[in-house]
Amino acid sequence: MVWREDRSPASLYNPAMRKAIILSIGDELVLGQTVDTNSAWLSAELAAHGIVSLYHHTVADDQAAIADAITLASTRSELVIITGGLGPTDDDLTRQALADAMGVELVLHEPSLKVIRAFFISRGRNMPQRNRVQAMHPAGTIVIPNHCGAAPGIQAQLNDATIYVTPGVPREMHDMFREAILPHVTEGSADDDATAHTILTRKVNTFGMGESDVADKLGDLTDRSRNPMVGTTVSEGIVSVRIRSEFTDSTEAQRELDATVQTIEEKLGSIVFSHDDASLQEMLVPLLIERKQMVATAESCTGGLIGKMITDVSGSSAVYAGGWVTYTNEMKSSQLDVPAELFEQVGAVSQEVAVAMANGAVAQSGASLAVGITGIAGPDGGTVEKPVGTVWIGLAWKDGAGDIQSEALRFHLPGDRAAVRDRAAKCALQMVRFHLLGIDLNTIRWARGKR
Amino acid sequence: MVWREDRSPASLYNPAMRKAIILSIGDELVLGQTVDTNSAWLSAELAAHGIVSLYHHTVADDQAAIADAITLASTRSELVIITGGLGPTDDDLTRQALADAMGVELVLHEPSLKVIRAFFISRGRNMPQRNRVQAMHPAGTIVIPNHCGAAPGIQAQLNDATIYVTPGVPREMHDMFREAILPHVTEGSADDDATAHTILTRKVNTFGMGESDVADKLGDLTDRSRNPMVGTTVSEGIVSVRIRSEFTDSTEAQRELDATVQTIEEKLGSIVFSHDDASLQEMLVPLLIERKQMVATAESCTGGLIGKMITDVSGSSAVYAGGWVTYTNEMKSSQLDVPAELFEQVGAVSQEVAVAMANGAVAQSGASLAVGITGIAGPDGGTVEKPVGTVWIGLAWKDGAGDIQSEALRFHLPGDRAAVRDRAAKCALQMVRFHLLGIDLNTIRWARGKR
Repeated sequence: MVWREDRSPASLYNPAMRKAIILSIGDELVLGQTVDTNSAWLSAELAAHGIVSLYHHTVADDQAAIADAITLASTRSELVIITGGLGPTDDDLTRQALADAMGVELVLHEPSLKVIRAFFISRGRNMPQRNRVQAMHPAGTIVIPNHCGAAPGIQAQLNDATIYVTPGVPREMHDMFREAILPHVTEGSADDDATAHTILTRKVNTFGMGESDVADKLGDLTDRSRNPMVGTTVSEGIVSVRIRSEFTDSTEAQRELDATVQTIEEKLGSIVFSHDDASLQEMLVPLLIERKQMVATAESCTGGLIGKMITDVSGSSAVYAGGWVTYTNEMKSSQLDVPAELFEQVGAVSQEVAVAMANGAVAQSGASLAVGITGIAGPDGGTVEKPVGTVWIGLAWKDGAGDIQSEALRFHLPGDRAAVRDRAAKCALQMVRFHLLGIDLNTIRWARGKR
Repeated sequence: MVWREDRSPASLYNPAMRKAIILSIGDELVLGQTVDTNSAWLSAELAAHGIVSLYHHTVADDQAAIADAITLASTRSELVIITGGLGPTDDDLTRQALADAMGVELVLHEPSLKVIRAFFISRGRNMPQRNRVQAMHPAGTIVIPNHCGAAPGIQAQLNDATIYVTPGVPREMHDMFREAILPHVTEGSADDDATAHTILTRKVNTFGMGESDVADKLGDLTDRSRNPMVGTTVSEGIVSVRIRSEFTDSTEAQRELDATVQTIEEKLGSIVFSHDDASLQEMLVPLLIERKQMVATAESCTGGLIGKMITDVSGSSAVYAGGWVTYTNEMKSSQLDVPAELFEQVGAVSQEVAVAMANGAVAQSGASLAVGITGIAGPDGGTVEKPVGTVWIGLAWKDGAGDIQSEALRFHLPGDRAAVRDRAAKCALQMVRFHLLGIDLNTIRWARGKR
């Protein structure tokens, strides 16, 4: 695949692509009290439909500043999406600013007023007088109904741009975008080959290797001039491979994306656990169901996190018996029959204790499989021999004869207390997954120390 | 406190205040693959020092677009901070774009080259040739050292503005901002009363009442024309009262902030659990230590989440014995001695089972206090009698005579599975806190159903 000569391979700004500008409005954003997630969400949705964002622009609840930003955007792009500033209070000024930018007055939209009144009545209240402003819109604009909240949206035309205004509440914005905006902005683009353009993205998620090892395995797939383009990012120990497939023809974009994903999966093997946003536990629970296995947990340093992760998944009650948080040594002995002498002989953070915890959990719970986890999450408690981040994870299971078998791995996990606990829990989940798939546990190279 | 007449009370744009513009650079931001947290962080830091952000502007890795954004910002504000685009790869174009905007060439900074080489050697590698560009900067600009990574920052002068460029990696950006940028931008402002201005903010966090109940209790404190200004926000069930104190004199800003916080605490009482970013569990663990109490957990619907939350806190081993995740009825009976007939008579989600779980946890663990929690997190499992969101939380404790006492509350928690579990765990933590403080548990009005 060769990129056109008339642009640098890295530039998003292909002249053939449609462009949008995203404005977000709010003092809380400009003061840094709230992180703007709406702009990223909208950009990702638009990119998936071949529309690239020229820029994001965030301004305060200031009528003149909002009007300026709208005017500027309307001369730079055919599509402007604005979120926020449609509430009923004095600092919600987006509709007034849009009217200023258009040089028109605000007018009352009677049907909206009825809907807003009904919205309050359905909650057993009368509409406060100040909510009346939410039924106002700049003269000559179109009102967009809000199915999730009080404030309707607005569709307007100014200079070269179609402008959409939505509430800033993410749930209301998402609904309005999908219901009323996306169908309009994608309308007709399939018929118009000169400007049609598709960007498809996918994420392939791995756990078990560091980012540089993953990059080494990907080799020249990560060349910037390749299309689909391939890159890696890391978030909370998960190394994700991001693929961006950009073609004029949407079928070709999909085919090339799928082919690249397949190549990546062949290169990376079993450490790949999901695509896009599915978590380790969301993949593990169906696998446990399929294999008819019941799991139990015996946790020390993770304090219940592994149980919490498994039970994040609806339906996990079919495969999760339950578990123990044996935070003290006394609890480890009294609940899981960990021999008390082990604490003196090898210490609570040891292969022996991790295995004994897992064995005890299988024996006590009746589950077919259990993890035992013991470690030093920090910031205190580390020693030269066992520094902060040392974690032993044991796995115990009933073999065909009903005897309990076990295996354990040691990890040296980096980061602060929260990071150590999170990575430890993910290592445990990936170990269970590998066990079920018959994969050698030593395939997990993530933070495996040599000591 | 009267606001000046020449501006609307809601406007951040007090003419006396210094202004900044924040630019963030990156395809991943404009494509929506990454949420920009840097701009919010920088704005909050600047606001705390009396500098308000005029706007945030996010642009792609496109040399011309970055140069345009820099030029525009340099004519609108005396201070421009740019994050991102200083890496070594082809799509890192911020330094080239700055040189374009300034009409100068990039030049090599030999000391930086030495530092970058040393940075790689300290990691046992030779500097890749492509990292050489990170030692380049626009002629006539000042290089800012990077103590956490390879890419130095840049300080430049263009039109009316001082421009700072930092890497996009949050850790490197934070360090560079605090070490090299903040001292410059706050320099001299204390001597210059005409422009000096302080914004101080604080958050007062509550759990136990809905937002509208909290707002009712705050009364006219929430008038938009008040200074310090008071508003409420809700995040994951926590209703936070945000206070913004804005005065020319920093001592006055602090004094007025403290007075408003005190008034709010008097109005809201025991549901206030912390200021700023401290969580319920971060406040609970020191209280348990102070009261010399040891707690245990018996969890069903939360699956380990309460144990996880308590053990989020370093030092929790002094006050947390551990717990059980009794996800099946069998585990509830075998581990916590919940009478099996209860499941038939009143069901697993019942006052009796919640209390029996808590009692069992106290008896088995040796802790002085335990919570038992059982509920229907959804999306499945709800009935007309016990809809999704029904949660019983029991509390059991040893009284002075060593006998076990108990109490339980029922909740009807809104939201999806994750929300129900999160709110249930927070209700449990607040119940333990109220118990320790001798406050009537019924003070928690949050999602308490009448059935």
